[in-house]
Amino acid sequence: MTDDAGTAPRRAGRPLEMVLSRARITAAALALITTEGYGGFTMSSLARTLKVAPSALYNHVSSKQEVLQWLEDHVMTMVDVSGFGSEPWDDAMRRWAWSYRDVFARHSPLVPLVAVLPVTGAPETLKMYETVAVGLGGAGVPVETIIPAIVAVESFIFGSALDANAPADIFDTGELAGSSPTFTAAVLGQDRSTGERPADVAFRFGLEALLAAVPATRPGRPA
Amino acid sequence: MTDDAGTAPRRAGRPLEMVLSRARITAAALALITTEGYGGFTMSSLARTLKVAPSALYNHVSSKQEVLQWLEDHVMTMVDVSGFGSEPWDDAMRRWAWSYRDVFARHSPLVPLVAVLPVTGAPETLKMYETVAVGLGGAGVPVETIIPAIVAVESFIFGSALDANAPADIFDTGELAGSSPTFTAAVLGQDRSTGERPADVAFRFGLEALLAAVPATRPGRPA
Repeated sequence: MTDDAGTAPRRAGRPLEMVLSRARITAAALALITTEGYGGFTMSSLARTLKVAPSALYNHVSSKQEVLQWLEDHVMTMVDVSGFGSEPWDDAMRRWAWSYRDVFARHSPLVPLVAVLPVTGAPETLKMYETVAVGLGGAGVPVETIIPAIVAVESFIFGSALDANAPADIFDTGELAGSSPTFTAAVLGQDRSTGERPADVAFRFGLEALLAAVPATRPGRPA
Repeated sequence: MTDDAGTAPRRAGRPLEMVLSRARITAAALALITTEGYGGFTMSSLARTLKVAPSALYNHVSSKQEVLQWLEDHVMTMVDVSGFGSEPWDDAMRRWAWSYRDVFARHSPLVPLVAVLPVTGAPETLKMYETVAVGLGGAGVPVETIIPAIVAVESFIFGSALDANAPADIFDTGELAGSSPTFTAAVLGQDRSTGERPADVAFRFGLEALLAAVPATRPGRPA
């Protein structure tokens, strides 16, 4: 059980202090990670940022893992769901998916967490799922296909968020080119004419494939 | 620069000892992780398993990160590429993708690593890519589409390997059901008649969508 981002007290008797804690700790964690990166993020550095003793911090949150879960849920509010209800369903999905990938490419250490985090501990994440589910339902997607479609697109987004951080030379075969002639030719034969990053070309390819398979009955964007 | 899994000496003068080191350390790491899990994997526990002092271990490998990279490359040999050359291209892709997901679902802490690891440090991984590239090329996929197709399918596999470890109740909305009625209905409305795990239903949906988008000119499995 966790509180819902600060709108309800967790326990009687200490309302105000507890009310603010999740939001304040999460904001401090985000500020710290934005300047120092995930590598420098520890409970001690977080306590220093909050100007409290580590023991005081542990009165409010059980572990670094829990802070990261709170942070994951907060980061999810940065994902753009504004297209649902205002755009054709497929454009709304595109806006959501590209923004979701970009946000978690910047916060890739959170990817393994969000992939396994129950929605009851992540109310903002659940809010996002509700918006997407309403969008797909409104597009005429059968109720039994909504979850598989969301999970498939989201799994693709998570993997792509990791891939977006791959070094540009990840597929340069170097001195191993002789033993991998077809793969090496494929790497060299990528279409560079658009100037688009290879990670973006692959993301577009996969996302359009997934959207094409969503059994919507309402029309998407006119071709 | 790393050696290629023990077939060539890294340096003149210490051939035999160096020849065996990467393979031996990797095998010990795999044995340790298979019994203890990734949580208990440290350089000290690895040194104990190898019956050497930690300092001796560090003479052969620079960091835990490097051991995990070697392990990643070794784990990749467990992925089933046997369909390429013997089955229709799409069945070969299915066999590869399902097996790749299953292997990395068991080794999910390696997922963030493999997603960003240059192939020059991972010769077995490169061998796998070569096999898949030959398969796609043989299916008539244009050379400029081979890499985007592999990256898209692989990103989907990585995210799905993480998703396969999600708790069964990840989407149970509990007391938040009232604020997420459409999503809750979609969770409850999933088709359970086949007995297939929800993670597998989503993986099949996404994989078939991606394969359908691969511009092969040779026929796949007869429908």
